[in-house]
Amino acid sequence: MKIVQCVPNFSEGRDLEKVEKIVSVLKNRENVKLVSYEPDASYNRTVVTLLGEPDAVKNAVISMVGVTTELIDLNNHTGEHSRMGATDVIPYIPIKDMTMEECVDLAKQTAKKINDLYNVPIFLYEEAAKNEDRINLANIRKGQFEGMKEKIQLEEWAPDYGKSEIHPTAGATAVGARLPLVAFNINLDTTNVEIAANIAKAIRHSGGGFRYIKAGPASIEDKGIVQVTMNITNYKKTSIYRVFETVKMEAKRYGVNVLGSEIVGLVPMEALVESIEYYLGLEGFSMDKVLETNLFD
Amino acid sequence: MKIVQCVPNFSEGRDLEKVEKIVSVLKNRENVKLVSYEPDASYNRTVVTLLGEPDAVKNAVISMVGVTTELIDLNNHTGEHSRMGATDVIPYIPIKDMTMEECVDLAKQTAKKINDLYNVPIFLYEEAAKNEDRINLANIRKGQFEGMKEKIQLEEWAPDYGKSEIHPTAGATAVGARLPLVAFNINLDTTNVEIAANIAKAIRHSGGGFRYIKAGPASIEDKGIVQVTMNITNYKKTSIYRVFETVKMEAKRYGVNVLGSEIVGLVPMEALVESIEYYLGLEGFSMDKVLETNLFD
Repeated sequence: MKIVQCVPNFSEGRDLEKVEKIVSVLKNRENVKLVSYEPDASYNRTVVTLLGEPDAVKNAVISMVGVTTELIDLNNHTGEHSRMGATDVIPYIPIKDMTMEECVDLAKQTAKKINDLYNVPIFLYEEAAKNEDRINLANIRKGQFEGMKEKIQLEEWAPDYGKSEIHPTAGATAVGARLPLVAFNINLDTTNVEIAANIAKAIRHSGGGFRYIKAGPASIEDKGIVQVTMNITNYKKTSIYRVFETVKMEAKRYGVNVLGSEIVGLVPMEALVESIEYYLGLEGFSMDKVLETNLFD
Repeated sequence: MKIVQCVPNFSEGRDLEKVEKIVSVLKNRENVKLVSYEPDASYNRTVVTLLGEPDAVKNAVISMVGVTTELIDLNNHTGEHSRMGATDVIPYIPIKDMTMEECVDLAKQTAKKINDLYNVPIFLYEEAAKNEDRINLANIRKGQFEGMKEKIQLEEWAPDYGKSEIHPTAGATAVGARLPLVAFNINLDTTNVEIAANIAKAIRHSGGGFRYIKAGPASIEDKGIVQVTMNITNYKKTSIYRVFETVKMEAKRYGVNVLGSEIVGLVPMEALVESIEYYLGLEGFSMDKVLETNLFD
């Protein structure tokens, strides 16, 4: 059975009654597991995590967009997080027996259907992007809901689906496909956030570091420590252990100890297995050797 | 659906044509998954891992014993690993919706049928053992194929099924039930098997080491290395990383490097997660955060 993950973000994180109404259409669906939904009041945004059979997940998400289009008016929306649509972004992530191409197809089907049903213009992004400028979501979303009214009329920002005008209340939505990312934070035994900033710069792609690391510093004031906080955007090519050992190596330069780490959200078993293979020097190992809890389905 | 694991070991690991003939009877069976088979030339032994519905697995294993009895002659067998039978040992392990009692029953049914069909005497061991002396397989197998000719005639070593004489070419077989274990081997960069023997002694329960480790030395001559070969009989209480780091620490005493390790057969995901938590210093981690491949069943 093919399994896809989908992490739609919608632009409501304060009115919990609305959040419940929106999320309710994702519940009790066959072959769809609503893993979590996390409303954030200061972002005024909710991150939803779904897992399931591709078509079932697609249909669930399309239904959800119907409700967000009805309930959310971006003209009255404020929040810390950039946004351009009632449903702002819909990434698909291949989990089991799925190729990236299949996720890109799923993104395109979703995009077309959303536009057909609700008249919301769609931009395809990341692996589904039609050109270089549209790979990075931040490029597409620049100007946000307010700026999109004019931006979408420019020839180079014509949407991939729909007319060159935003939905009057629901704006525009980005739909795409990407590999699972690992949200990984490493704790340093210092209060000097400059050290975390230097290390973050050393390991991230934009600073000359690893190709698939986006990283920055954070101060965890209640614990009296700092953190190198990162997304590993391709854990198959930039492994968890490699980043962890590199941060340890860099921290030595400042005479600072690495206290430990944390993983935020889900982590694919494969990413952990890759690291345990390194630490134990495992030879001839493969995922087939891991005894999971659900063996037949 | 009840699921049992079975890990029969047979005494051929060099003639790969024979190995294939034996394993072929395990393939394409309904409700049986042939997870792996790992022939080892220096052990001259193959470890097979099966998962599936209890009766289906039992029938597969009984058929396999028919082929090993036909093809393997212990009179001409040499290898690093102790053995007393063409099929040497058949452990059943409860995986899902099964009790240990049900595994013991399955072991007894298997034992009776093998004896009825092929006239191979059977010893029940571990959880299926009829007395203290027969719990530990090493006790039963002491003297190996060559010594069993006379040992089996002693009143206290009468087999649990069959007459008090070995099968002339296939010897005797142990059938039992046990909890899952992790078969873990650590490779040392030396040809001196004494060093592996000393380290094995230091880490195993009987030598004063860890409570849930059974370990011994092995010479892997074709690779010019030696191995500390072990079973971790309770990975929840004696962790993989702890044993691995201890072996590294002991190896230093002899100026020998640890080259790597291997896991034979299946390893529960939980055992790997425990080790990755150690190496990355993961805080607040749990199995819930691991994205498994089989999400629905």
